[in-house]
Amino acid sequence: MAKVVALYKQPKDKEQFDEHYFNVHGPITAKIPGLREMKVTRFNKNVMTGGEPEHYLMCEMIYDSMEDLKNGMRSDEGKASGKDLMGFAGDLVTLMIGEEVE
Amino acid sequence: MAKVVALYKQPKDKEQFDEHYFNVHGPITAKIPGLREMKVTRFNKNVMTGGEPEHYLMCEMIYDSMEDLKNGMRSDEGKASGKDLMGFAGDLVTLMIGEEVE
Repeated sequence: MAKVVALYKQPKDKEQFDEHYFNVHGPITAKIPGLREMKVTRFNKNVMTGGEPEHYLMCEMIYDSMEDLKNGMRSDEGKASGKDLMGFAGDLVTLMIGEEVE
Repeated sequence: MAKVVALYKQPKDKEQFDEHYFNVHGPITAKIPGLREMKVTRFNKNVMTGGEPEHYLMCEMIYDSMEDLKNGMRSDEGKASGKDLMGFAGDLVTLMIGEEVE
C-alpha cells in the first residue's frame, strides 16, 4: 500500500479554505484513477503547546501500490488535481509520498 | 474517531532512530489503554522537490473517541510513552490531536 500525504498549514481564511477544499478540490481529486481511499484529518491541538497546531488539515490518498500511485499522479485527473491544489493552497501544502510500515 | 498524529522530522541517524522507534517506543506506546490502532507511514519523497521530505515518519494513534484519547494520554502508560518520546525524539517530533472528517 502506498499513499500521498498532503499536509496543509493553517490557512488565513479557514471558511474559504474549507469551501474550496471540500466542494472543489476533494471532488476533483476523487476522480484520480486507482485512488482507493481519501482520508481527511482535521487537527485541533498541538499536544506540546496546547494551542493551535502548525497544520490545519491532512489528506491521505491511498493506492494499492506505488505503481498505481505514480500512474494516478501522471493521469489527466492527477494533473488537474495538482493544478487546482497549487491554485488554492500552493503556499500552504506539503505533499509527500509514503508507504505504510507493516 | 480521534487520533494523535506524531510527525517526525528526518533524524540524523536513521538506523538508530528506527532501532529505538520500532523496538522500544512502539511497544511502550502500544500498551496505552484504549488505543485501537497504530499506523506508521514512512515518507520517501517530497512530491514538489523530488527530494528527501522534511518529515521521515508519521504515526497515527487511533482511538474510538476523544474521551478515550484523553484518558489514554493521561494514563501511566500514556505518560511513559510521552517520556520515552521526549527522550529519543523531543527535537524531531510534532504531536497533534485530530479527528477524521467523514
